[in-house]
Amino acid sequence: MARTVSCYDCGNTYAFDERKRCACGEPLWFETTPDEFAWDDAGAIDDAWRYIDALPVSNPTGVAPGGTPLVRAERLDEYAGCTLSLKHEGQNPTGSFKDRGSAVGIGYALEAGQAWVGTVSHGNMALSMSAYAAGAGLDCAVFVPADTPAERLELIGRHDPEIFRVEGDYGRLYADTLSLDAPVNFVNSDTPLRVAGQKTVAYEIVEQSAPDAPDAIVLPVSSGGQASAVWKALRELETAGAIDEIPRLYFCQAAACDPIAAAYRDDEPRVTPVTPEETIAVSIANADPPSGTRALAAARETGGAVVSVPDAAIRDAMDRLATRVGLSVEPSSAVAVAGVRRLAQRGEIEPSDDVVTVLTGSGYKERYDADVRSRTIDLDDVERELASVVGR
Amino acid sequence: MARTVSCYDCGNTYAFDERKRCACGEPLWFETTPDEFAWDDAGAIDDAWRYIDALPVSNPTGVAPGGTPLVRAERLDEYAGCTLSLKHEGQNPTGSFKDRGSAVGIGYALEAGQAWVGTVSHGNMALSMSAYAAGAGLDCAVFVPADTPAERLELIGRHDPEIFRVEGDYGRLYADTLSLDAPVNFVNSDTPLRVAGQKTVAYEIVEQSAPDAPDAIVLPVSSGGQASAVWKALRELETAGAIDEIPRLYFCQAAACDPIAAAYRDDEPRVTPVTPEETIAVSIANADPPSGTRALAAARETGGAVVSVPDAAIRDAMDRLATRVGLSVEPSSAVAVAGVRRLAQRGEIEPSDDVVTVLTGSGYKERYDADVRSRTIDLDDVERELASVVGR
Repeated sequence: MARTVSCYDCGNTYAFDERKRCACGEPLWFETTPDEFAWDDAGAIDDAWRYIDALPVSNPTGVAPGGTPLVRAERLDEYAGCTLSLKHEGQNPTGSFKDRGSAVGIGYALEAGQAWVGTVSHGNMALSMSAYAAGAGLDCAVFVPADTPAERLELIGRHDPEIFRVEGDYGRLYADTLSLDAPVNFVNSDTPLRVAGQKTVAYEIVEQSAPDAPDAIVLPVSSGGQASAVWKALRELETAGAIDEIPRLYFCQAAACDPIAAAYRDDEPRVTPVTPEETIAVSIANADPPSGTRALAAARETGGAVVSVPDAAIRDAMDRLATRVGLSVEPSSAVAVAGVRRLAQRGEIEPSDDVVTVLTGSGYKERYDADVRSRTIDLDDVERELASVVGR
Repeated sequence: MARTVSCYDCGNTYAFDERKRCACGEPLWFETTPDEFAWDDAGAIDDAWRYIDALPVSNPTGVAPGGTPLVRAERLDEYAGCTLSLKHEGQNPTGSFKDRGSAVGIGYALEAGQAWVGTVSHGNMALSMSAYAAGAGLDCAVFVPADTPAERLELIGRHDPEIFRVEGDYGRLYADTLSLDAPVNFVNSDTPLRVAGQKTVAYEIVEQSAPDAPDAIVLPVSSGGQASAVWKALRELETAGAIDEIPRLYFCQAAACDPIAAAYRDDEPRVTPVTPEETIAVSIANADPPSGTRALAAARETGGAVVSVPDAAIRDAMDRLATRVGLSVEPSSAVAVAGVRRLAQRGEIEPSDDVVTVLTGSGYKERYDADVRSRTIDLDDVERELASVVGR
């Protein structure tokens, strides 16, 4: 079945397998304009396949992604400076939002009779693609930097992909895999199949917020793939009349590697590469984001913005999420929560704004050195020790 | 609001806060007989609060547990010797089935105006209770063995509970915390509040399997809390006419610590403590399960059984789940999948049986030493190296 992809910038259209990116240089996404979105069953969302009419697959199998909770986080309203809700993507099958895109990529590969899929990632995307390929009986090529630590590969290795440790400029791999002559479907960061699947997080957010769409949606941004997907989904919903107005889109980066935020604050028309510094938000430290300019356009056209936050703010956000909401998230996810606070401090977000922040991945997949507070007691002293802490 | 608890064995009933266990020595569960279960919206399950009429809470807040996928695992049918589906509890908010019970415990504590909750656990239950308490603004006392490694505590510590490292016989703590004079609500392994919340996994399984209930449901068993909960839920569904027949219940343990399986195979009327040996299934190695006899009764009365499996079979099951279904689970979860195979080999489960196995927790919270297969290549050789693996 021929499907059309189009360019958000110059408007060109192509058949899906004709080109990987637009002749103008910008990324492509699937042209879909669902005529309607069914809201009949009052927002009970099993999973992302609820929205299959808007996706380039027909009969997906495997573990369904999505259907994640939208959590009202009133205990963070004061910190965040808004009426805050959190979309908990750590509850996807492999613990991150990436499963939405991977499931579509794998589904398409199965329908197209492709034996191999691939990905350029040593993090969530690699884990997600390896797992989904394993479930579908497809082979998966995973490209990681040669110096990736063994512990990081151990999780991915459980699903038994073909792992290639690449010596050289890892950043070149995105472009290289697009032009490879190999029968491998690379479902990378901002490819049309991944972007299509990632749209479902926005459909869910809007449905879970019904009848009123949020005033703003906030995401961490790396390649710009999810940012693009959310924008595309909201545009479709507006076209379909399911929402009156597109929520403002805010994207957040780590200050140590913030090419999109830099272009936004410098009023640049396009995103250009930066030289990254160290940050705990490793998984979003993309110095040359392939959909950076598309993300920039999304923020501007929706009346949003792109901001960056320092590591100290990221750590603080992680701690607040864990101790006041009970959610442990990755540093890259916490970036968006720290970003909301920054936006509120700058007056771009107001206390009465309904803001949904996407928590992209579970923190339990990461381990940190920490001095964990505890006390050692004797079994016979349990009652007395407990009373001294609990009080009367 | 007074709620009644009852004994499955002698039939005594009490008000909930009157006793912790029955005078006969057996555990108590909430008396609830919902008049009907609504199936109107064709099985779209948002989360476990769908079943709130059957639970001892009225207005729960926080991150909703449940609503996890039921995955048809045809690629394991041959291995498992049945028509296999998997309930993926790793997709709960803190990555395990424990969230169902914790959410009810926390919800009850909030409604009752209790400031402190507690748990005796260094694993999933500790993580779950700490997170849910943090989200509710309650304090949480966590009792762990004194020699618990720091890494294990790091995850729990993120939610900032009061951690007590206890020197002495950790196994005594279950009984000790039941009789403590302290204003702490211990939502332990098989307490009525936890068992009530854990029922929801069975409601979901039946609803997701509709119109026909599964022929059998298989679980790993430790304290016997979840086993009891599933049995209770199925009895309620049968009473309500939602199912015609209760599925056979099979419980699985690690051979190194299998008091319930031992009592089953020796035709004992009650479960007695064992001396455990080492196993990778650490989190279900409960040598003196407080609801062991209740679980034994559940298996017998439903026409099921209790089996145990060696560590090699557990590891094999973990690998098959990761490489053929794309799900990474804890060893304790894989015990149930290895158990299904064993039951099939013994003729207790047949190829045409629809069997649902509960995968209790995500494997990504654990790390292992492993030789991960990979190859190191140069960036310039990507195409050639990929071609050598992919073939043409």
